[in-house]
Amino acid sequence: MGHTSTNPPAAHRPLTGSRVTARDLAQRLGVATSTVTRAFDPQSRISAAARTRILAMADELGYRPNAIARSLNQRRTGIVALVMGDMSNPFYPAVLETFSLQLRESGRQLLLFVVPAGGDADALMPQLLQYQVDAIVVTAARLSSHMSDLCARQGVPVVFLNRRVEDPSVWSVCCDNQRMAAEVAEYLVGQNRRACAFVSGDPQVSTTADRLRGFEQGLAVHGQRLAACVQGGYSYEGGRAAAAQLFSSGQPPVDAVFCANDVMALGVLSHLRMNTRLRVPEDVAVVGFDDIRAAAYAENDLTTVHQPVTRMIECAIRLLDEGRPNGSVTQALREIPGYLVPRSTA
Amino acid sequence: MGHTSTNPPAAHRPLTGSRVTARDLAQRLGVATSTVTRAFDPQSRISAAARTRILAMADELGYRPNAIARSLNQRRTGIVALVMGDMSNPFYPAVLETFSLQLRESGRQLLLFVVPAGGDADALMPQLLQYQVDAIVVTAARLSSHMSDLCARQGVPVVFLNRRVEDPSVWSVCCDNQRMAAEVAEYLVGQNRRACAFVSGDPQVSTTADRLRGFEQGLAVHGQRLAACVQGGYSYEGGRAAAAQLFSSGQPPVDAVFCANDVMALGVLSHLRMNTRLRVPEDVAVVGFDDIRAAAYAENDLTTVHQPVTRMIECAIRLLDEGRPNGSVTQALREIPGYLVPRSTA
Repeated sequence: MGHTSTNPPAAHRPLTGSRVTARDLAQRLGVATSTVTRAFDPQSRISAAARTRILAMADELGYRPNAIARSLNQRRTGIVALVMGDMSNPFYPAVLETFSLQLRESGRQLLLFVVPAGGDADALMPQLLQYQVDAIVVTAARLSSHMSDLCARQGVPVVFLNRRVEDPSVWSVCCDNQRMAAEVAEYLVGQNRRACAFVSGDPQVSTTADRLRGFEQGLAVHGQRLAACVQGGYSYEGGRAAAAQLFSSGQPPVDAVFCANDVMALGVLSHLRMNTRLRVPEDVAVVGFDDIRAAAYAENDLTTVHQPVTRMIECAIRLLDEGRPNGSVTQALREIPGYLVPRSTA
Repeated sequence: MGHTSTNPPAAHRPLTGSRVTARDLAQRLGVATSTVTRAFDPQSRISAAARTRILAMADELGYRPNAIARSLNQRRTGIVALVMGDMSNPFYPAVLETFSLQLRESGRQLLLFVVPAGGDADALMPQLLQYQVDAIVVTAARLSSHMSDLCARQGVPVVFLNRRVEDPSVWSVCCDNQRMAAEVAEYLVGQNRRACAFVSGDPQVSTTADRLRGFEQGLAVHGQRLAACVQGGYSYEGGRAAAAQLFSSGQPPVDAVFCANDVMALGVLSHLRMNTRLRVPEDVAVVGFDDIRAAAYAENDLTTVHQPVTRMIECAIRLLDEGRPNGSVTQALREIPGYLVPRSTA
């Protein structure tokens, strides 16, 4: 762990006074300037030995390529903004991790803007746009059509991830929420469930609205209607409170609960196991949505819908290069198929 | 939700062809150029009415301040890099959320680099430094002393968060891990626990090493030695496996388990409840570290050590402005006091 901060050897000193360029470095090493440039680009093919040699000399001379200055010429910064709300739901950190890694593989970096829970992203857009980002991805947060239109006019494409927006100037990438929710209804009816309830998130959010609509349609195919619909605010505590409401005396009995996300389903399970004598799944089936890691934990073993996070993000990253969508709302929407994961709660 | 993309009124057209400057905007509005600048700086004092008027005109004329170009003059980009590993432990998304919000309050933005679990940050540093970040914060990831020294020499301060580094050229901000672990030992011995085990994360990581050392010292004060020490790899699954090992037949009995994080403690609880007849806390006490949200869930109700995340991050952000530390390893370390949260598992 030696940390001696020595001066460069005398032979190299003349360069360190002024700003060292890639050309200086190339001359010193007897390679082409383009080889030096490639050494700093993780996407480029260059032998490990050559890269190490160039990086070592760059380090010694104090050379460092300036992505920011380069971006002013290229009009591309290589920076993509991600605007994210609701970091408390473990689904979103998983999205963030995958997005960050995939974006870096595509040679770009992630400027992160966290929106406080329940807030919208409009207030931070003037500051965000100052950073000359190449594109903006919004997830679990609101952005007004006025603001997304402003971005589009400034040539900055906007992609909504896990949100469907009624706006033909921005992209939306979602799981096929409605179809998957209908499949959950089909699955529950097939198990002779006769009184199915829905625990919703914010009913204004498209994902919740689509899942509710699909669930109702799936039940209707078998002549059933939704037995109850309560709000759970997307949180574990909200799920517990929703279950307390559904299973309080005086309420008509419910034998299945479909939740708009896994975190609420874990809250429902917690209430059923700790505060009632109802058995899961014998008396009540519980189904979530997302397939977060905790859904697979042995003590939860939650039946849920798997959201294809990796493919949703691959799709969003491809759209970053497509510019502004140029058609109808339907054409600006990409729906990626999810699938049901049957475990022991239903 | 109207989305008509109209051209600006005729009176404004002459400006839109070339690049609109803050001075153009100021002249048009009859205000000082500095007033225009202040309207785009969330830290500046300016009336809401003036800000709205300036932002509306800027929108109309297509003016947008260029933080990137400005940074080339000021030699500050206002961008701080956060290098983060282990997004699967919910402690870190909570850190990220708080860090992002506090950083924005200080007028800076967060460039995020996620390191794949178990990886180190060295490989991405050449690319990271190209973005001319003002500072680098590293959490749950390794960075070699060679790389942190390179950053320091380039005038980019490095702060390790939740890691203590033996390197006087970088800052370290931690909870007082050793003292808190000693307090856990004290607490368990005070409850007549006579055979205390430790479930560790990566033993090379300073936080795990400090917690183990403090726990052993706290036991030693009362003449006890650690009954067992097993690795749990910081994960829930690792915690389950560690418990399976500790409570397999043939092992000497253990009546308390202290885990280096909450996620492993939840795995230990899961194993005890699902795979043994041991009662918590009557037969075995379980204590975690971090105080993640799930620790407080009714079915977990985990006794743990609260890490003062908000104050740790406040401290780290203050250090960003202090440049490189200029003294000993001890002087470069900031330890923020945590506290024990007694719940029902111990």
